[in-house]
Amino acid sequence: MTVRAELLKNIRNVEPYVPGEQPQKRVVKLNTNENPYPPAPGVKEALANLDAADFRLYPDPASGVLTRALAENYGVGEDQIFVGVGSDEVLALCFLTFFNSGKPVLFPDITYSFYKVWAALYGIPYECPELDRNFRLVKEDYYRENGGIIFPNPNAPTAVYEELDFVEDILHHNRDTIVIVDEAYVDFAGRSAAELIDRYDNLIVTQTFSKSRSMAGMRIGFAMASPGLIECLNHVKYSFNSYTMSRAAQVCGAAAVKDREYFESNVRKIVTTRERVKGELEKLGFLLTDSRANFLFARHPEYDAGRLFEELKEENVYVRHWDDEKIGQYLRITVGTDEEMNVLLDCLKRRLQS
Amino acid sequence: MTVRAELLKNIRNVEPYVPGEQPQKRVVKLNTNENPYPPAPGVKEALANLDAADFRLYPDPASGVLTRALAENYGVGEDQIFVGVGSDEVLALCFLTFFNSGKPVLFPDITYSFYKVWAALYGIPYECPELDRNFRLVKEDYYRENGGIIFPNPNAPTAVYEELDFVEDILHHNRDTIVIVDEAYVDFAGRSAAELIDRYDNLIVTQTFSKSRSMAGMRIGFAMASPGLIECLNHVKYSFNSYTMSRAAQVCGAAAVKDREYFESNVRKIVTTRERVKGELEKLGFLLTDSRANFLFARHPEYDAGRLFEELKEENVYVRHWDDEKIGQYLRITVGTDEEMNVLLDCLKRRLQS
Repeated sequence: MTVRAELLKNIRNVEPYVPGEQPQKRVVKLNTNENPYPPAPGVKEALANLDAADFRLYPDPASGVLTRALAENYGVGEDQIFVGVGSDEVLALCFLTFFNSGKPVLFPDITYSFYKVWAALYGIPYECPELDRNFRLVKEDYYRENGGIIFPNPNAPTAVYEELDFVEDILHHNRDTIVIVDEAYVDFAGRSAAELIDRYDNLIVTQTFSKSRSMAGMRIGFAMASPGLIECLNHVKYSFNSYTMSRAAQVCGAAAVKDREYFESNVRKIVTTRERVKGELEKLGFLLTDSRANFLFARHPEYDAGRLFEELKEENVYVRHWDDEKIGQYLRITVGTDEEMNVLLDCLKRRLQS
Repeated sequence: MTVRAELLKNIRNVEPYVPGEQPQKRVVKLNTNENPYPPAPGVKEALANLDAADFRLYPDPASGVLTRALAENYGVGEDQIFVGVGSDEVLALCFLTFFNSGKPVLFPDITYSFYKVWAALYGIPYECPELDRNFRLVKEDYYRENGGIIFPNPNAPTAVYEELDFVEDILHHNRDTIVIVDEAYVDFAGRSAAELIDRYDNLIVTQTFSKSRSMAGMRIGFAMASPGLIECLNHVKYSFNSYTMSRAAQVCGAAAVKDREYFESNVRKIVTTRERVKGELEKLGFLLTDSRANFLFARHPEYDAGRLFEELKEENVYVRHWDDEKIGQYLRITVGTDEEMNVLLDCLKRRLQS
C-alpha cells in the first residue's frame, strides 16, 4: 500500500515492523516469554464480579484499587507506586519524564530492544556500553557523566542477573541522575531493587504482570520509586492522557497481586523446570548463561542457531532467534510447562543426533 | 513532595495537573460526558465468556476481532481501521505520525484541550484560528499552508456540528496535508466523514467507544482512513509498543459494535433528552449553541457561570466549567438520564428564581 509523495513528506518515517509470529496451528510456543500457567484463581473471580454496566464510566485515573494492592504487597506507600498499560507504557513514560538533561543516557549494547526506540522517539541521546564476554554488565562503564541509566535485571535476552550490591554501586555513583532498573524478570531471579527506593531517591524500579503474574493479555506494568519521582511521572502522564488503565485491568490486576501463595508456587514451578531443562540442554552440548529469568539463552558450539531455529519451527516448536552479529548464535527459549519442554528436548535430541 | 534540585534538571517540567473531580458521595454526575446507559447486552455476555486462563498470553497486537467488527459495521476494509486505548491514544499517535512536516498544524482556538498538549509533547508547531462569534469554524482559515489540520466535529466544548460539505471543502483545499476529523461525538450529530475516506487519501476520522457506546471504562478508540495512512499508523505504533489493547477490551468492544439496534436506541434516547432539556433551559433564559453532542453548552445572560457551577455543586450536581476568558461564562452539561436532568433543572429553577 502506497501513500502519495506529497502526503509522505508529512509522515514520520520508521522501519516497517513485522509483527511477531502468531502461528494459528497448534504449536509449542516458547517465543514470547509468556507464563505457561493461568493467573491466580482470584482473577477469574474478579472478572466474574465485573459489572458491564459500570463500563459506561471512566476508570479511576489513579488506578487506586491496583495501586493499593501493589503498595500493600511490596510494603511501600501508595505514593511510591505508578501503574501503566504494561511496563512498556511505564518505561516509555519514564524515558519521556526523566531523561531530559540532553546528556547521553546509558544502557547496555545487548538489552531490551525498545530502549533505543524510545530514545529515538523522544530525541534522547544515548550510548551503549558493551557487555563483557560473559554477557555481564561492566559497572564501571556506568560511572561516567550521563543523562540517566537504564538496564534490565535480569538482562534480556541474556537472562543474566546482577546482585543488589552491584545495582547499589551503580546507584551510588550516579546520585544526581535517574537510574531505572527494569525488573520484568526479577521474580524468577532474586532480590528486587525495590528495597532500595527509600535509600536512593534517584532509583526507579519497573516490573510487569506479563511474566510472573501470567497477565500478558491484560497489559499491566508498574514502577516503584520515591514519592517525588512518582509525582513527576503522574504529572507528565496526566498532562497528556488521563485514562489508560481499564476498569477490568485494575480489578483483575489487584486480584492477581493479592494471592501471594499462588504467585510463589507459580514462580517456583517455572524455576524448577528451568533448572531441569538447563541441565538437559547442557547434556546435549549447549552452552548457557546462568539464566535467572523465565527463559534460557543457549548456543550450541557445533550447530548454527539460525538453522536450529528453523528446524524447530518445522516441528511446530517456536523459540526466538535474532539475525544479529553479537547474539546470532543464541536461541532464547521461554520456559513452558514440563510437557512443552520435553517436546522441545525431544526435537533437539533428534536434530543434534541425526 | 519535592525532588532534589540535582535530580530535577533531568526531569521534564509540566504543569501540575489536578485530576477531574471524582466525588465519592452520591451525585448527579454531568461533568465528563459519559453515557448514562449501560453498554449493549452483548458486552456483558462477552465479559462472561472471557476465560481468565487466556490472560497469560499476549493479546493479538492487531486487535483482529475488534478491527473486523468495526470494518463490517462501517462497511470499510479491515485495512482501513486502526484501534487504540481510547481515542486519546489514537489521536496522540496521529500527531506523532502525521504532523512531521515542521510546518504549523492548524486547530481551532476553542477545542479539545489535548491538541496543544500533544503538539508540545512532540515539538510540533501549531496555530489556532479563532472560531467566529457563533462558535463556528471559519473554513477559509484552514486554506493556508499548514503541516496538518485537526478539529472535532461536533467541536468540543461548543457542541457545534459542521455538515459534511463543510468538511469536504477543507479536505479539498488541503490535498497534500493530513486532515484529522475527531468525531468523538458524531453519533449524536449526523453524518460521519468516514464516508469520505475512499475519496480523500489525506483524511483520518477518529471515533471513540467512550460516548455513544457507553464504554469509557474500557478505553477504546479507533481511526478510519485510507489503507496507506493506516499502515503508517501501524508502523509507528509497532515500532515502539506492540501490545496496548487488552484481550478484554478487544472482545467487549467487538460485542458493543455488533449490536446496532441497541446502539441506535441508546443514541436516540440521549438525543431526545438533549432536545427536551435544551428547550427547558431556554425557557429559563439560557442561551445555548445548537448542540449536536451528548452535552449542552449554555450560558445565562444574567447569572455568572462560575457561581452557578459552584451552586450546583453544593446541591451535588456536577457540571463542567472553565476559568477561561473566552468560554468562562458557559457551562458544559452532559446529557444524563431524564431523571438526572430533572434534578439539574429543578436546581437551576430554584437558583434562578430565588
